[in-house]
Amino acid sequence: MAGGAARVAVAGATGYTGQELLRLLARHPAVTITAATSSGTSAARRLPALARIWNGTITPLVPEALASEADVVFLALPDKAAAELAPMLVDAGVRVIDLSGAFRLRDQSLRAKWYPETHRVPDGLAYGLTELERPAVAGARMVANPGCYPTATLLALAPIVAAGILAEGTDVVVDAKSGVSGAGKTPSERTHFSEVHGSVAAYGVFGHRHGAEIEQGVAIADGAHPGMHSVNFVPHLMPLDRGILATIYVRVAAGTTDAALASIFERAYAGAAFVRLVGAALPEIKHVAHTNFCDIGWRIDPSGRVVLVSVIDNLLKGASGQAVQNMNVMLGLDEATGLL
Amino acid sequence: MAGGAARVAVAGATGYTGQELLRLLARHPAVTITAATSSGTSAARRLPALARIWNGTITPLVPEALASEADVVFLALPDKAAAELAPMLVDAGVRVIDLSGAFRLRDQSLRAKWYPETHRVPDGLAYGLTELERPAVAGARMVANPGCYPTATLLALAPIVAAGILAEGTDVVVDAKSGVSGAGKTPSERTHFSEVHGSVAAYGVFGHRHGAEIEQGVAIADGAHPGMHSVNFVPHLMPLDRGILATIYVRVAAGTTDAALASIFERAYAGAAFVRLVGAALPEIKHVAHTNFCDIGWRIDPSGRVVLVSVIDNLLKGASGQAVQNMNVMLGLDEATGLL
Amino acid sequence: MAGGAARVAVAGATGYTGQELLRLLARHPAVTITAATSSGTSAARRLPALARIWNGTITPLVPEALASEADVVFLALPDKAAAELAPMLVDAGVRVIDLSGAFRLRDQSLRAKWYPETHRVPDGLAYGLTELERPAVAGARMVANPGCYPTATLLALAPIVAAGILAEGTDVVVDAKSGVSGAGKTPSERTHFSEVHGSVAAYGVFGHRHGAEIEQGVAIADGAHPGMHSVNFVPHLMPLDRGILATIYVRVAAGTTDAALASIFERAYAGAAFVRLVGAALPEIKHVAHTNFCDIGWRIDPSGRVVLVSVIDNLLKGASGQAVQNMNVMLGLDEATGLL
Amino acid sequence: MAGGAARVAVAGATGYTGQELLRLLARHPAVTITAATSSGTSAARRLPALARIWNGTITPLVPEALASEADVVFLALPDKAAAELAPMLVDAGVRVIDLSGAFRLRDQSLRAKWYPETHRVPDGLAYGLTELERPAVAGARMVANPGCYPTATLLALAPIVAAGILAEGTDVVVDAKSGVSGAGKTPSERTHFSEVHGSVAAYGVFGHRHGAEIEQGVAIADGAHPGMHSVNFVPHLMPLDRGILATIYVRVAAGTTDAALASIFERAYAGAAFVRLVGAALPEIKHVAHTNFCDIGWRIDPSGRVVLVSVIDNLLKGASGQAVQNMNVMLGLDEATGLL
Repeated sequence: MAGGAARVAVAGATGYTGQELLRLLARHPAVTITAATSSGTSAARRLPALARIWNGTITPLVPEALASEADVVFLALPDKAAAELAPMLVDAGVRVIDLSGAFRLRDQSLRAKWYPETHRVPDGLAYGLTELERPAVAGARMVANPGCYPTATLLALAPIVAAGILAEGTDVVVDAKSGVSGAGKTPSERTHFSEVHGSVAAYGVFGHRHGAEIEQGVAIADGAHPGMHSVNFVPHLMPLDRGILATIYVRVAAGTTDAALASIFERAYAGAAFVRLVGAALPEIKHVAHTNFCDIGWRIDPSGRVVLVSVIDNLLKGASGQAVQNMNVMLGLDEATGLL
Repeated sequence: MAGGAARVAVAGATGYTGQELLRLLARHPAVTITAATSSGTSAARRLPALARIWNGTITPLVPEALASEADVVFLALPDKAAAELAPMLVDAGVRVIDLSGAFRLRDQSLRAKWYPETHRVPDGLAYGLTELERPAVAGARMVANPGCYPTATLLALAPIVAAGILAEGTDVVVDAKSGVSGAGKTPSERTHFSEVHGSVAAYGVFGHRHGAEIEQGVAIADGAHPGMHSVNFVPHLMPLDRGILATIYVRVAAGTTDAALASIFERAYAGAAFVRLVGAALPEIKHVAHTNFCDIGWRIDPSGRVVLVSVIDNLLKGASGQAVQNMNVMLGLDEATGLL
Repeated sequence: MAGGAARVAVAGATGYTGQELLRLLARHPAVTITAATSSGTSAARRLPALARIWNGTITPLVPEALASEADVVFLALPDKAAAELAPMLVDAGVRVIDLSGAFRLRDQSLRAKWYPETHRVPDGLAYGLTELERPAVAGARMVANPGCYPTATLLALAPIVAAGILAEGTDVVVDAKSGVSGAGKTPSERTHFSEVHGSVAAYGVFGHRHGAEIEQGVAIADGAHPGMHSVNFVPHLMPLDRGILATIYVRVAAGTTDAALASIFERAYAGAAFVRLVGAALPEIKHVAHTNFCDIGWRIDPSGRVVLVSVIDNLLKGASGQAVQNMNVMLGLDEATGLL
Repeated sequence: MAGGAARVAVAGATGYTGQELLRLLARHPAVTITAATSSGTSAARRLPALARIWNGTITPLVPEALASEADVVFLALPDKAAAELAPMLVDAGVRVIDLSGAFRLRDQSLRAKWYPETHRVPDGLAYGLTELERPAVAGARMVANPGCYPTATLLALAPIVAAGILAEGTDVVVDAKSGVSGAGKTPSERTHFSEVHGSVAAYGVFGHRHGAEIEQGVAIADGAHPGMHSVNFVPHLMPLDRGILATIYVRVAAGTTDAALASIFERAYAGAAFVRLVGAALPEIKHVAHTNFCDIGWRIDPSGRVVLVSVIDNLLKGASGQAVQNMNVMLGLDEATGLL
């Protein structure tokens, strides 16, 4: 093990986000992977697709071992498993970056509604939308890594909200398009190739948990409380593997200029390594696939209608990449370390 | 040639919509294809992909010949070519179904803006959104077949508008997702496989001609004039070949029930062969690909937010299928003849 | 029910081939669907995707009812279920078209190896590769509908074998590429969109049951016994939904001309409605998707190396389309009835 | 510029391979990009998709400037442009890595047939299939980077040939499946999304230039001259963006064991950073996409039939990745530097 390298572990290392974490951490210059576990593993085994990239073994999950073997533990687990394991690890003094949804909502009643499996929230928890929460992440003992849709949406929407230029009473419509890997690795009719190929479908209308997380983010940006601004969030499943494109429709005051919008974004993301502002050029998923970037574009018309377009790779900036970015911030490293 | 069969011709028979027309017309029990032309053709030639389906030949376009050989001419041509040819054919007494955009907008100033190549509009012109314009189509000498996006959008939106239940001042957001065949057969960077595969992109924000056509349709449904209702229409290019899914966001009075919405749609489409109402089940492109159906679903929440989802095959209900449906109506046939 | 219409039933109507059968039979002018069953159905239910195309209901499978309600029963069932049900139905005087693999191999020992669940083979059984077995199918009480890979392969290969021009000792290599729908509707890791999209994989090397079926077909064409000619058959999974392309590599006598090959194919398929010979143009899946055609192309070099390329839609000519074609032949109809 | 960093330039930096080169070189720890040119560029411009990854500008191609600004020049140009530029650069003392086909064939008559635009071959030229030509590459002044199909094919086939175990007179069949990016960025009917999506097509039968390159590689492995072994190479276009899977069919002596095959491969690739041997597990494109790996699997049956399966990412190991790997070897670096 390298001298000053942080010891990191991945719990849930065989899913799509877990494997992506191993890829990123294996090439990261400042960490050493000391454990990678899977609940579906009874004896140590290798991952052929990662051969030469990471040559360690996947082992069964033993919580106590994790706590002693690692300084930072990434949880790429189902909500319920994360909800149970995270507080224990934090109590044991380990820093935790949780990629599940279990700890993303701050409001107790909302959390009880959307994540009833979460019973205890550890102290020192930060919400890990890095660009918007950098100081909190830097000082956190645990980070709740954001959902993929909220990441794409809030990076575009929050600066506009925080700037206070939204027209009063405006609807906020978020029409998001996602690749299939966001649905996870478990086979189902919804993820069957023949159901997805050549098709597009909306789902979760008025009932997706990421809608609550987006509303929370909007409220934070507005300085208000969750639920003050309603967001009409509709996700769609697209026939591609990786990537999210969120198209966001709001109104601002008539006469607001493109330059004014640009200025808001430039101030919000000065120095942010992973946000690229493309303005009227409008971003495409292709430009960010297999990267940790979030590209944001916008158009405004004279009546004040604004269309924001934001794209990310759901497995990187929307999950594992942002998790490593958060680790970098927690460890006092440059946030881009190992991610470019 | 069969006794009472109508003689039909296709001008522009080698593009995607032209070939689809040949496929449909070749199996249609009440017509005979008497000509199929292409401007890129100097000598008669066959289309191998259509062998055994249609065994005629593609020939050069000779306008005078078309007018004498056919009772109905389908124009699957670029706007400019259609703008020139259509009036001549109508003058010659031929019935014309135009799949270009040249004659879709009724308002002279809007048409001058979006389709400046259109100089003369023939008498007896109907807008061919069949389900909404059946009587006009039945009596028309020429039909302007609607755009693919307006077809998907207006079939879902017009009944709500016509019912007068839209909340005052509501935004109308139409987020549409389309397959690539809608961009036509001419190769370009935008239609290159490697640019589209694994990607999603918005385009034409605040500047797509179909936006004006949708606003026209909304105005007609409302009994008002074009431009009264602004529609924020953003099309997106998806990595699939055929199909459009339009997600439409509007507000109606708080407390409007799902049953009320359902009732509006059921009345609007009683007896319509090609509109299938699926309500809260939400439709998918897969269900309508390679058919002439438009499937419409909807969700409403207690605050009056409505999400409509409408899907079509852009080459069939969005182009060639609806064109044949219009021909059926013009000829007094059952509108589904040859299309199921 | 129409006067002289044959009564047909589909057992296993909710899988991909079952639904395709319903689509075809619903528009077939000479039959009436009297039953459509599914083992996963406890009460009658509708298939929304088939609304307006077929308005019947899916009901639980009751073998005795099937036998009395239908003149022809299509079995779109797993091998084991078909192996049990088919003999009973034939005994009851019903004509059976079996889309499973249970009855495709004639040789008892090969069948015991590859389809051990098949215990009794009914009398009057024909192998339903229509173009090669038309007389046998016409007189059969039951038809074993061929596998999708053997259909694509044998239609190209059998005429060459039957013509006796294969070089002695030539290897026969069949490299087949298939869409995912051939793997059926049951979700699995192999059919997960994220595993298939952007990937290609070989499978079943030296161990796919369709290899034995192809060898049987080659032996029949050669007038010899199964196993005389070994075929090196390797199927591959492609990121598309429908379609098979088989590339076949053999050697013939040096100096054999392209004209000689063309002549063999033309004689073999004179009058065959669904085989289209494209020669050196080489066929593509796109040309046959959503049709019952098999397009066959070929190239030969002066040393006698031959490359054959054959394409079909695996759900139509490779399954349900050919099943209906066989029904047409059994009922004395034109083989193309309802299929163009 | 970093102290000991090599100065590298990319000519033809806006195509798919050129952009991939910039991505790799920008993160490479031992080089500095000093120029990136495009013939389609008249004034310096940036590449938005590479923002934050590489912040240089694309400039017009000025051969003399290239020769003075860089120690190593990568040519990602059309064959004709590379054929002209390469000798001039080598004369000027610059090391050249040419990704075009212009210098891949050693035999003068074959080169005249397949690459007639190549008039002069510089001294000090090596063929850059790194794993098979490491010493030659290390000492070369110029490297002809192999074609994508030959890379995938020869890495699997050459060890078997070199081991002398091929059965006498065996056919060598190479059935290769490629993504569309291998066809380059210029739009054409063949690369139109709607032509490729949902389709598969063979092309170039008996007439693809990579077939000659594969035969050359087989001859080298065999210690014989080009053309001694004929290879039946058929490439196919698949509906995916990146990746090649080559399935190779040969015969060896009956009774050859799997262990014997494995041993041949293990000896051939001991210490090779980018070849991963997966044996009977068979590799998939998904496992190597976006990496520089070549995964090789194999199966053998008792009669001596061998199926080899080899996969690469055509833009990396099949082009830009291998080019950087060759640069590493030329510069005396670990061959994996900057590539894992």
